[in-house]
Parts: sequence; C-alpha cells; structure tokens
Amino acid sequence: MKIVARTALINQSLPLESGQVLDRFELAYETYGELNAQKDNAILICHGYTANQHAAGCGPSGEAKPGWWDAAIGPGKPIDTNRYFVLSSNVLGGAGGSSCAASLDPTTKKPYGMRFPVVTIGDIVKAQHQLSEQMSISRFHAIVGGCMGGFQVMEWMASFPSHFDKAVVLAATYRVSAHTIALMAIIRDAICSDPDWQGGDYYGSGRKPDRGMGLATRFGLCIWMGRSVMEQRFANRLSGDKRLHYGFGPEFEIEQFLQQVGAGSGEKIDPNSLIYLGRTMQYFDLSRRYPYLPDAFEHFQGKALLVSYDSDWRYPPEEMELIHQALESAKVPSKHITLSSTFGHGAFIYDFSSLAPVLSEFLN
Amino acid sequence: MKIVARTALINQSLPLESGQVLDRFELAYETYGELNAQKDNAILICHGYTANQHAAGCGPSGEAKPGWWDAAIGPGKPIDTNRYFVLSSNVLGGAGGSSCAASLDPTTKKPYGMRFPVVTIGDIVKAQHQLSEQMSISRFHAIVGGCMGGFQVMEWMASFPSHFDKAVVLAATYRVSAHTIALMAIIRDAICSDPDWQGGDYYGSGRKPDRGMGLATRFGLCIWMGRSVMEQRFANRLSGDKRLHYGFGPEFEIEQFLQQVGAGSGEKIDPNSLIYLGRTMQYFDLSRRYPYLPDAFEHFQGKALLVSYDSDWRYPPEEMELIHQALESAKVPSKHITLSSTFGHGAFIYDFSSLAPVLSEFLN
Repeated sequence: MKIVARTALINQSLPLESGQVLDRFELAYETYGELNAQKDNAILICHGYTANQHAAGCGPSGEAKPGWWDAAIGPGKPIDTNRYFVLSSNVLGGAGGSSCAASLDPTTKKPYGMRFPVVTIGDIVKAQHQLSEQMSISRFHAIVGGCMGGFQVMEWMASFPSHFDKAVVLAATYRVSAHTIALMAIIRDAICSDPDWQGGDYYGSGRKPDRGMGLATRFGLCIWMGRSVMEQRFANRLSGDKRLHYGFGPEFEIEQFLQQVGAGSGEKIDPNSLIYLGRTMQYFDLSRRYPYLPDAFEHFQGKALLVSYDSDWRYPPEEMELIHQALESAKVPSKHITLSSTFGHGAFIYDFSSLAPVLSEFLN
Repeated sequence: MKIVARTALINQSLPLESGQVLDRFELAYETYGELNAQKDNAILICHGYTANQHAAGCGPSGEAKPGWWDAAIGPGKPIDTNRYFVLSSNVLGGAGGSSCAASLDPTTKKPYGMRFPVVTIGDIVKAQHQLSEQMSISRFHAIVGGCMGGFQVMEWMASFPSHFDKAVVLAATYRVSAHTIALMAIIRDAICSDPDWQGGDYYGSGRKPDRGMGLATRFGLCIWMGRSVMEQRFANRLSGDKRLHYGFGPEFEIEQFLQQVGAGSGEKIDPNSLIYLGRTMQYFDLSRRYPYLPDAFEHFQGKALLVSYDSDWRYPPEEMELIHQALESAKVPSKHITLSSTFGHGAFIYDFSSLAPVLSEFLN
C-alpha cells in the first residue's frame, strides 16, 4: 500500500463562522493507495475527537503504530486501497500538523495558544473542501467518519452536497447532548486547572499540563470505554501481590491501567487542541442552522449509510434514527443499522468486525 | 418531629480490617422521632458516598436545608417518625463530625490528614454497631440504605445478622465494578493533583483544594446524573444572550450549572473524606469474604427488600438480581423490584415517589 504523509499549505483565505479570517492555513493529511487518472476513486476519511490523520498503516512519518482505523483501510480491507485512493485529513485545529493553537501566529511569530480562533465543524469541512480542490479532487466516491468525523460527513452533505456519492456516518448525532457538552467542559477544566497550562502558553516553556491532561484522559476513558468492556477486562481484580494494602497506591488492575493511560497522554495530543476541538464539538448542532432537519440534506444527491451501536450511550441509536428519518424526508436513499457491541462509543474502531461487511457492501 | 443531633464518643477500641486500631472514636448522628420504652421501634439509615447524617428535617444544627432523604423520613412519610425512631449515623471516616482525616490525631494533636487509617464497610458497620450498643438498641426494626448505604446494610446482614428484622438495599451491588473503582480513582486524582491539597495537610493552612474538588464534583455529576435527566434539564440550550461567542466562557446552560455545582463543593464535603470513602467503596466486595455469596446471608433471620433502577448504570438491576438469588439460596425471604426512572443512580433520592409505596408497604 502506497502511503504518503504531507502537510498542505492552502494559500487561500478561510473566513470562519466566528467572523475571524485565516489568511492562509495548513492541513496535514495522509493518503493510502493511488488516485486514478479520472480522479474518481477518492474516499475521504474524517477523524474523531482524539484521533488524527494517521488512520492506517505504519506511517511514513515514522509512526511505529498502525493508524487508528487500520482494520478498515488497506489492501483487500473494506476501504480497499487496491481500488480506492484514501485521503485522511487532519482537522483544522487538530494538532497533527494542521493550523492550530500550537501553530505560529504570523502576526506575533509566536504560537497562537488560546488566541487561535475557535473553529466549527463547518469551518473544518470548508478547509477540507479547499484541500480537495488543491488536490484536484472534485468529487469523492465516499466520505466516511465516526463520532466527530460523522459530524463532518453530515456537514459535507449540507454544505457540499454534490461533491460525493456515498456518505457513511458512524456513531454520531446531529446535535450534541448536554452530557457531551458537560464532558467537553470538564476536559477543558481539567487541563486549565493545571498550573503548568499557563493560560495556554506552555509551548517552549519546558512545562506542559501533563497532570491536567492525565486527568482529562482518564476521565474521558471512563466515558468512552463502555462499563461492560471495562468490567470484562478488569473487574475488581487486585494487581501485584493480590492483597489489599489499606493505602492509596494503585491496588487494582483498573487503577494501574488508568495510570498508564494518563501517563503519556500529553505526548500524543496537544492539550490546547483537546480544548479547541471540545468547543468545536460542543457547538455542533445541525438543527441550529436547519430547524427542519431534512433541509440539511435536501440537496444531497448520493446515498447514506448510518451505523449506530446499541451500547453507545453518548450517541444512542435513537438519535441516529432521527437522522435517518430526516434523510428519508429529504428523499435521500439511506440505511440505518444498529450493531450490537459491548464497546460503546468506540465500537466502530475497537470492535470493527461487525461493521466490516456492512461498510464493504455499501462502498463496493 | 423531634430532631436530635449529637456526636457520640465511643470509648471502646475499634480494631480495623487493616490491622490498625482506633482506641476510641466519635460518630456523629441525628435522630428523628422517639425511641419507645421497649426500644424496638428503631430504624437505622445508612448514607451514601457524598451524603451524611443530616437525612431529614431542617436540622437542629442549624442546617437551612432539609436532609438528603427528607422525602422518605418524617411524620406520615414512608419511614414514619410517628411510629419509628430513626437513627441516621454518619459513617466512620465521613466528615460530618465523626472520626476522620480532619479529626485530631491524639498522638500528634494535629489533624490526621492522610495518616488516618483506611476504613472498610466492615469497619463502618462495626462502629455503627458500637453506637447502637451505647444507645441500648439491641435490635433494629429495619436497616435501610442506598448506594454505599446499601453496602452497609448487606454488611450488617453478614456481620450482625440477628440485630435487625428488615433489610432494605437500594441501588447497590455486592461488589463494585471496574467502572466504580475507576471513578473513585479519578476523583482522588483530581483532588490530589491540586497543589492546594498539600499532601492532605491543608487543614488550617488557609488554602484548600477547591479546584480539585470542583473538578471531582463536576466529573462525579456526569456519572451520577443520568444522561437523560441532564438532557431533559439542559439539552444544548445556550445561556445568557443565546448566541455563540466563539470563546471559552460558559455559553451553555449545562456549563453554567457545572460551574455552580463545582463552586462550593469543598465547603460541603471535606476533600480528604471523599478520598477515604472512595477507597472504602473500591474495597467493597462481599464475595471476597464469601466466595459463595449465599454464605454472607445464611444467618440473617429477617427479610429483605431490594430495589434497583432500570437507568442505574453504576449498579444495574442484573447485579441486584444476583443478590436476590443469593438471598433466595440462603432462604432469606426477599423481594427484588426494579423501578423505572430517568434519574439513574440517584433515583432513590431524587425520584422518590415510585419508591415511597414500596418502602412503606415493606416497613409497615
């Protein structure tokens, strides 16, 4: 599989929903497979909140680990790189090399920090669209995304309805719940409460909000990982010498796991990016722009696959069904499948086997 | 209703499961109603993780707010103070006036801080039993508790099986899940990561881990409050001027609510107590001592009422059903009722109306 990792400089201004304007911006991306001569075999992958453009393979950027959706993308896999050219774009505001809080502010020559503008899903998709234009891809075979990636797919349907044939929305909703807003607020609080956050200006200071990030990550894990998966993996098993110690060190396997998870989290994700993309998700509400939801989809000419998971309490099947009904009202051919999994919200990544045939059939 | 609030000094040594011994200890309690001459009309109320002995009425200690279970306890209420003498005991380790991390260590004359011993549900119940002996109550009509209070009721059944007639276990489990262990670990982390925690020795320093407590409280709220309740109350409604501001101040009603909830939390609960009782809950596993669970209940001569809630994802009905089966195997007459509520784990407190007739019928 041919893998390319690049950062595109888009020398075009990007007016944001906030009213601010980025005069130019960068988007990092990876591609898998090859674009055919007709340029009609491209599939765009939109990533979720804590992921990035490294979706498949052991990347050319030296990543030792396969990408987050390696089970889905590759030769002979459901998103088959023998047939398709897969473009996986980092989101605007995401710290995978795209313009974000860690980027240099051209006016000050220092990292933006919290002076970077808040971006919306609409802004992210506009930026992706400009990237696709720069790559001379005028139409995607499909656009696929889960969680925040699913928000992007719906935004593409609303804003660029004639630019792709197949929409795949996984484990998503058309507007976030109070619970998701709360979760994102607490993640932000956890990071900002760490004195090493320094108002967001920790770049180059030698100190980073590692404790706050550890807290945010461990907290997020409790919400993302289904209770039942956690139970199957750890239950209340004691670690080490299997005795109670009547102290406060980690004595349970789950406590040790949380320590590990929290430990390196600041290395993998830029804390400010987590704050920014949290705001991006909090703002997502297609019904704010389209009070009658079918209006969001009325110009989309392709067809849609919606997949929800019975154990996904963040974006439950009932909310996906509302999207399905809106698509039907808008006369978009669509299918909503609810899969069973104990993996909760992360099932489309961590329990991919049941999704594989569904995705494969829809795309091919 | 006659209300009394006292702190009992128990001048008896209490050997703890850890091997440590408290030479003497204090337990704070409130009572509602009057003990009859035969001393056979007492009901013991066991409180949950974040509650205390102030369960009913606007207390004589000057509490402006009615107790946490005021809907259940009072004249003519399901726990009827016209008939029963209700004893609501603060747990050992809980900072309602009982011996805990905030108490003076007799050897140093300074607050224990993190040098207070870790206490278990078994220790808490032993302390309650000594309190009941001091009050000359040899037998309770009933012992009632939800959440961590339910753990105490089961411990009473195992350790003092002939000391009460009716056991009421609400929204509890016989051993905590990986998820509860994780939750308690993160609450501990949130508090300890605040520099103002000062290794637990913040007493009298003029600084308290308010930020850490705020985080822990907001995080806990996301787990305790059902997603659906949160959704009904707040959805994604914007606060204030109802516009998006593209900044990071609280813009949603749920964000404002979280700020309020987090703000005064350190006033109400001593942070170290939250750490200690978190450990107490993490350790709770009746099956560690009784691998064949019915053995825990074989000597209990009374009958039991178990109530679970369909939306309680922390202690789901399936786990309560295992307790029910163990009781049946132990030949204890018992009834397990699952009530429907959107209030999740807190339903026995915040959605009391459906529980009222069930409780009333069982006790009277």
